[in-house]
Amino acid sequence: MISAPYLLFLGDAPDGLAAKVAQGIRDWNPDVALGQFRMEGCKADMRLPDMTLDEAIAAGCKTLVIGVANRGGMISPAWIAVLKEALAKGLDIASGLHNLLRDEPELVAAAKEHGRTLHDVRIPSVKYPIASGVRRTGKRCLAVGTDCSVGKMYTSLAMEREMVKRGMKATFRATGQTGILITGNGVPLDAVIADFMAGSVEWLTPDNDADHWDLIEGQGSLFHASYSGVTMALVHGGQPDALILSHEPTRSHMRGLPDYKLPRLEDLRDVALTLARVVNPACEVVGISINTANLHEEAALEYLEATEKRMGLPTVDPFRQGAGRLVDALDAL
Amino acid sequence: MISAPYLLFLGDAPDGLAAKVAQGIRDWNPDVALGQFRMEGCKADMRLPDMTLDEAIAAGCKTLVIGVANRGGMISPAWIAVLKEALAKGLDIASGLHNLLRDEPELVAAAKEHGRTLHDVRIPSVKYPIASGVRRTGKRCLAVGTDCSVGKMYTSLAMEREMVKRGMKATFRATGQTGILITGNGVPLDAVIADFMAGSVEWLTPDNDADHWDLIEGQGSLFHASYSGVTMALVHGGQPDALILSHEPTRSHMRGLPDYKLPRLEDLRDVALTLARVVNPACEVVGISINTANLHEEAALEYLEATEKRMGLPTVDPFRQGAGRLVDALDAL
Repeated sequence: MISAPYLLFLGDAPDGLAAKVAQGIRDWNPDVALGQFRMEGCKADMRLPDMTLDEAIAAGCKTLVIGVANRGGMISPAWIAVLKEALAKGLDIASGLHNLLRDEPELVAAAKEHGRTLHDVRIPSVKYPIASGVRRTGKRCLAVGTDCSVGKMYTSLAMEREMVKRGMKATFRATGQTGILITGNGVPLDAVIADFMAGSVEWLTPDNDADHWDLIEGQGSLFHASYSGVTMALVHGGQPDALILSHEPTRSHMRGLPDYKLPRLEDLRDVALTLARVVNPACEVVGISINTANLHEEAALEYLEATEKRMGLPTVDPFRQGAGRLVDALDAL
Repeated sequence: MISAPYLLFLGDAPDGLAAKVAQGIRDWNPDVALGQFRMEGCKADMRLPDMTLDEAIAAGCKTLVIGVANRGGMISPAWIAVLKEALAKGLDIASGLHNLLRDEPELVAAAKEHGRTLHDVRIPSVKYPIASGVRRTGKRCLAVGTDCSVGKMYTSLAMEREMVKRGMKATFRATGQTGILITGNGVPLDAVIADFMAGSVEWLTPDNDADHWDLIEGQGSLFHASYSGVTMALVHGGQPDALILSHEPTRSHMRGLPDYKLPRLEDLRDVALTLARVVNPACEVVGISINTANLHEEAALEYLEATEKRMGLPTVDPFRQGAGRLVDALDAL
C-alpha cells in the first residue's frame, strides 16, 4: 500500500506521452495528486500546482510518484539528486519503471538513513498463495481483449467511476504497474511466478459483500502468443461473473506479433466464456468495449452500431460515450 | 546442463515412493545412472550397484543427483555431511527439492572451496526471452491433460523411447523438476516469471530438422483453476503440430480442488485445439493416453476401447500397451 497523497514527479519528460503514468493518476484518481514536480526542460504538464519538495510536504504529500518513463525504463542520473532530497525531506518514493529503485545504491542508502520506503510496483512484495478455486462471495467483472493494449484498464476504470457515481459498491483491482500507481495497490501480475499467478488474482479479489463488484484490470489476451498464460490466470483466478470484450478495430496485427491477425470478437467470446465457466458456470459476456480512438466520429459510431447488431450485446466506446450502458448490463445480471 | 553420468543419492528414504525421482531416472535414462548411494536405514533400492563416493568417482560419475524427497522437500541435516564430502571429492550436486542447495551455507561454502556446481533445478538458471510467436522449423507434440498428474510426462517419455527405437528423430523436452533430472536439462516452468513463460517454451524447443519431433512435457491442465496459465503458455509457446489428450478415468475431482469435476475428453479436445490453432493452424489432436493404473486389466481394456470408439482417435495406456499407436499417429501426420 502506497501512502497518499502524492506529488507527481514529471522529471524532464520530453513530451506528454512520456508522462502517461502521471496522466493516468490525474485522470482516474485526481484527489490523490496534490501537485506536480517538474525539472528544467520538462515538456509535460498535468495542470496541477507546480510544487517544490518543501511545498509538497507542507501540503501533506506522503509519496513522490514517478509519473514519467524514460526510454528503456531507466532512472535518469539527473533525477537521483531530486529523489535523494525527497527521501531526506520525508517522502516515500513509488515507481513502476523497469529499472528498480532498489537497484540504485544511493537511493537505498538515503531511504535507509531517513526511514523511508521505496515502492517498486513492478515487483511483487507479497508471497501469494496457490489458487484454491474456492468460490468467493461478491461479484467480479473482467475485461478480456482481442489483443494487448486495447483499452481494458480504461474500460474497467470508467465502469468503476460510473458505478461509484450511481452509489453501487465497486472497486477497480489493478493488475499492472500503471493501475497500481493509480490506486495505490494491486498485483503486478506479469512479474509473478507462474505457479502463483491465479492465486495472486484470488488474493486481490477476496470475499466481499454480495452486491459488491470488483472490476478486475485485464492483461494480455487469450489469443496473444506471448502473454496468454497471464490472461488465463486472470480468467481462472478472477472467477468472473461478467466478462467485457475489448477490441481496437483498426489494428492490422497483434501487438508485437506481425504474423498474427486479431481474432474475431465471436472467437474471443466463445473461448473466454468456455474457460471462465470452468470456475464460474454462471459467467456471462455482458458487453463490448471498443477503442475507436483511431476512427473519425462517424466511422466510430457506425462501427459500434454494426458490432452491437452483429453481436447482440451493448457495444460502446467508454471514452466517447461513457460506460453507462456497460454498467446497466452488469446491474441487470 | 547437468554433467553426466550420475550417482543416485537415495539418502535414508523411508520407502520406494520417496525415491520416485531416482526411479524416473532409472526407468527413463538408465545409462546415465552408474550407481546408487544409500545411507543407513534406506528402504529404497533402484537395483543399481551400491557405491561409495570414491567408487562412484572411480567409475566416472560427475554429479550426485538427489533422487529422494523428504517430507516438505527438506535437505535433511543427516545428508549434509555426505553432500559436503561429495563436493570435496569432486562431484557436482543436482536437486529438485523445494528447499534449495544454495540456501545451505555449508554446501555453498564447500562448493566454492572445491570449485563444484550446485544445480537447483527447481529454479530457472536462464534469462528467458519474451515469446515471439514466430514459426519454427521441426515438429512438436504436446501432451495436454484433463487434470494435473494424469501421466503426461510418462506418455511423452514413452513416445520418445519408441520413436528413437524406430530411428525417428525425437527429443523429450522437460518442463518439470523430475523431467529435468531425467534428461539433464529443461525449463522449470512453474518457477518462471509470468511474462517469460511462453518464451521459455520457445527457447526449449528451437528450430530443428524438418523431420525432428520435440515431445514436450505437459504441465497442469487448461481446466485446472490453479495452474491453467502455465498450461496455456505451453500451448502457445510450444506451437504444437500434434496434441495428445491425457486422462485418468477414476479420479472423482480435480487434483487439489475438491469442488471441481474433471472435464470430458471432448471438452479438452475442443478447447486445446482451438487455442493451439492460434499459433499453429495445422495442429491436430492425434491420440489419447489413458492412465489406467487404478483399473483392473479387463476394465482398463474396456474403457480404452469405448473411448477410442467414442472419440475416433487411437487410445492407449502406454504403460500397459506401449506408445506404438501414438507414434504411428504422429508418423501419419
